[in-house]
Order: sequence, then structure tokens, then C-alpha cells
Amino acid sequence: MTVFIAIDLGGTQMRVAAFGGKGFTPIHIERIPSQSPGASPQERLIQLITKVAPKGEQISAIGVAAPGPINPQKGIILTAPNIPGLVNFPLVADLQQKLNVPVFLDNDANLAALGEWQAGAGQGHNHLVYLTISTGIGGGIISAGHRLHGAQGFATEMGHITVLPDGPMCGCGHRGHLEAIASGTSIARWVKQEIAQGVPSALIGKSEISAKTVAEAARQGDPLSQAAYARAGYYLGQALADFLHIFNPSIVIFGGGVSRSGELLLNPVRKSLHQHILSEQYIKNLTITTAALGDDAGIIGALLLARQSTYV
Amino acid sequence: MTVFIAIDLGGTQMRVAAFGGKGFTPIHIERIPSQSPGASPQERLIQLITKVAPKGEQISAIGVAAPGPINPQKGIILTAPNIPGLVNFPLVADLQQKLNVPVFLDNDANLAALGEWQAGAGQGHNHLVYLTISTGIGGGIISAGHRLHGAQGFATEMGHITVLPDGPMCGCGHRGHLEAIASGTSIARWVKQEIAQGVPSALIGKSEISAKTVAEAARQGDPLSQAAYARAGYYLGQALADFLHIFNPSIVIFGGGVSRSGELLLNPVRKSLHQHILSEQYIKNLTITTAALGDDAGIIGALLLARQSTYV
Repeated sequence: MTVFIAIDLGGTQMRVAAFGGKGFTPIHIERIPSQSPGASPQERLIQLITKVAPKGEQISAIGVAAPGPINPQKGIILTAPNIPGLVNFPLVADLQQKLNVPVFLDNDANLAALGEWQAGAGQGHNHLVYLTISTGIGGGIISAGHRLHGAQGFATEMGHITVLPDGPMCGCGHRGHLEAIASGTSIARWVKQEIAQGVPSALIGKSEISAKTVAEAARQGDPLSQAAYARAGYYLGQALADFLHIFNPSIVIFGGGVSRSGELLLNPVRKSLHQHILSEQYIKNLTITTAALGDDAGIIGALLLARQSTYV
Repeated sequence: MTVFIAIDLGGTQMRVAAFGGKGFTPIHIERIPSQSPGASPQERLIQLITKVAPKGEQISAIGVAAPGPINPQKGIILTAPNIPGLVNFPLVADLQQKLNVPVFLDNDANLAALGEWQAGAGQGHNHLVYLTISTGIGGGIISAGHRLHGAQGFATEMGHITVLPDGPMCGCGHRGHLEAIASGTSIARWVKQEIAQGVPSALIGKSEISAKTVAEAARQGDPLSQAAYARAGYYLGQALADFLHIFNPSIVIFGGGVSRSGELLLNPVRKSLHQHILSEQYIKNLTITTAALGDDAGIIGALLLARQSTYV
């Protein structure tokens, strides 16, 4: 029996699953909160792998999807948001040494792109742009059937391109990045700022203002909430035109929590894209859609990474 | 004897050369002005190929570098700047039919990137960003040893990304593109506009104001001319930060006429890049340099295209 282990070190959940040589239904999956008391994250990871792996079977390979900054070439997690114990942690070397199995690491946005390409909304496409819009904005690129990594594995930071010089401050410390305007955090922040400046809204006085509550208010007709998604969609469309001019993909897939707002976000994206595109040839045969794998994109990507690395 | 024909349909010169199976020194090269009276461009092309090809030898393949919009998949030149006869011209089918030889077409910026990668400043690098800055701004990308083309061959339009929304109008009809600020044409236009608004300059009253004369005046201490290159370099640096975040290359090569201004342009580019980059990791091992092949980049690229397509 061929066994692969896929791990998704999510910000809220740590998920570990065993899969066979084919298909995308796990033999066994375990989920625990990322911030668990007691054992260290490394110890919990080993415990979960031992728990999900079929007894007496050799594991062929392990794939790991990690959020936040990693060094994929050296197999090091630089920091993992919400998993305090993992800082400058040589995950690949550590797991390989303890389990004597090949281990492969990539960031979750790249692996979600891989997952959507092979098992989700992007099947059959060889030129794919994947954008994940949640608290931040990340991405993954498939170009002529190759995942784009760059010389050191730091490529496809699609949220950190300048769309509005002197615009809002980004979490990275630079102004006017796409992430600083169109991420879920930025959508909510803009609504709060507008309310603070006296703009009327159905959200005034609400205890929580998030991209999700803004989307709900927009659907119920709140003009400020609608304007917030129109603004985010406008700059996403401008950036998407850049990405089409650079990559000329046949499909663009939006993933991440904010993409669940669906047409509320995609309508202004499409409108802005048409305003900014160099030529209709870029759009004519282009599919723009939302992700199909949802929360499973990372773990499916990690599985594919493990399988791919073994078969190649 | 193995013979390859390389053709560069430049805006001012049409160049046709015969090469052997190895090396980059032509057996025979012919150059004629692109706008010649008499025969049609198609006829002149066939005449030149016949002239340079060694008598009695079979041609293995022909590679063609074309400026302006093409459809590389269909082998069609949509329009060729300064070669009036070539509009919607099926160059590949035409040459293949007349000469019974495989013909390969790509745009000159992509082929210059290929040339610099294999035979110029980019040798030994597998992740390369090439930007050509002349009347317009074009580019070519090598990612993990693959040329980036996109689904239909319209990728790497690096001059048409928005760097300043509501900025100057671009030749393509959109505002604030990199090309509208940092191309040679745009540098000269900005200087003329500033002079028209009363800004003093050593260039006032000169019959010709071009990127070249602005560079000369800047070197002689003209503040307006220095400001023109500082401005172009600033936005090039901002865009370059985007490209590094997207591609994480190990080398960036600047080609095209404006790149001959050297450090006058590259100094402000580097300064701006440091201001805009997400992390020093992108720059630490990065080479930023000017092209090595000069005017030959296109024809060397066309030669490599012909050889590559035959060998693969």
C-alpha cells in the first residue's frame, strides 16, 4: 500500500491526513487547533502523523503547506502565524530525521494553486493565476504547467505590488500595496475609517466589523458596505489587468475567505478589468472563477506536492 | 553542414543572417532599411534569405524576431512598426510554403531575453527578468529555465502595468502605465512639458529633445534632465520591486536604447527598488545589469529559437 501524508499548518487548525497513491479522499484525517496547550507544535505534529498513518505501512513522502514566510529551498519555517513555537524551525530536516521519510514544504498559497490546478477549478488549464484573498492577499502561478517559485522560492507575492502609490499602509510597511486595499482586513478597516469620519452605515454600532459582516450589509443594501467592495474590486481589477499582461493566463481563480462574497467582489473586479486591460484578447477566452476546494486546497496541494516529488 | 537562418524585423533595419550549428558568429549577414522602395517586404525577405544561405545547403530552420504585436501561436504578424506592408501577415505559413523549412516566430523582447540568457549577460541564470527600454518598454521572462509566453503568447507586456493611476496617458490608451512614464519617448515628453511650463533647462531651444539628448544634458549637469532620469528611474524601481515580488529572479537585465544611459538610469532605479522592496532577501543575491548583446540580441534570440525548436 502506498501512503502519503499531507499536512496543512493553518493559522487556526493544524490538519494532518493520510492518503493512498490515488484520489483525494483521505484514509484518515486529524484536526487540532493550531494553538494547543501542552506539547510543542513539533511533538504534536509527530503524534498526529503517527495517528493517521496506517499501522505497519511505510510512508512514501510527506508534503507540508505552511502559512507565512518560509524558505522552501532550505525547508525552514521562518515564522508561522498563530503557531508560536515555530520560529526559524527546520521542519523538513526535523521530520526527515525523526521519520526517515522524504519531506517537502511549500507555502499554502502556492499549494492551493497546485491543488486547484490538479484537483479543483483549474483542471485542464496550463496557465493559471490563483489569488487568495483573506486577512492578507497571496497567490500562486502555474505557467505552462510549471509552478512559479523564483530563484529562492520567494516569488508570487501577488498582494505586495503597488497599486496606489501613497495609498494605505500595508502590513509589510510599504504603502499602496494591493493587500493594503483589497484584503479582508483592509476592506473592514476602510469601512471603520469611513464610519469614524461620519459616513452613515448600517454597521454603525456593531460589535464586529469584518469583511464578512460588510458583505452581509452590502447584500442588504448598505451603500457604504457596497462601496467598500466596489473599491476593493476596482483595485483588484487594476492589479488583475497587470497580472494578465504579465502572465496571459487562461484562468484566474479567487480563493480565500473574501472570495466567498462571490459576485459582490467579482462584479467590480470584472468591470475594472475591462477598463484596464490592454486588449480584449486577454479576456476573450479567460475564465474568472472562485476556488473549488475551499479549506481543503492547502492539504490537497500538500498531498500533490508529496506525490509529485516522489513520482518525478 | 547545418544552417540556421535568423531574421530580425527591426523598426529601422531588416536583418537576415545565416549561422552554422554552433556559435554566434554569422556565416553571412545582410542588412537593409525596413522601409525600402520597390519589392514588398515579403519578397525582400525571401531575396535576403536566398542571398545569405550557403549555396546547395539545406536550411534546418528559420527563427524570426518581430517588433510589435504578433500572434506567435498562429505565426502571424499583426502589425510591424515601420514595415507598412506587413499587416495581419501569416509570416510563418508564407515562409514555410515558399522555402519548405520550419519557421518559428516570436516577439523581439522575448527573443532578446532568450539571447541575453543563452549568449549574453544572463548566462548561468535560470530566473531572469529582461526589460527593454526604448521608444516603448517591453520585456521577457525566463522562469526556471522556461520562457514565459502565456496561454496565447501575449504575456510579459511589462511596460503595460499601472504604476501611477491617473498618471500620463500611455500609447495604448490607458493611464499611468510604466511605459507612459519611463520609456525614452516619455522621458523626452516630460522634459518638453516641463520646459513648456517655464522650468529652466540647458535643452531650451534645442531642435531635438530625445532620451539621448536629455541623458547628455543630465551628464553635463542640467537639473531638469537629471530630474527626468530620476523620475523615470523612480517608477522603474517601483515596478521592478513588483516584478521581484512576482518572479524572484536572480538577474535583471536592462536593454534597449535608454539602458545605454547606464548608471544615470540605474542609480535611481536601485534607490527606488530599495525603498519599495518587501525584504532584502529579494536583492541580496540579485544582479542588476545592462544587456551585453546590444542590437544583436534580437537576431541571436531568433537564432536560438530556430536551434531550440529543432533540437527539442
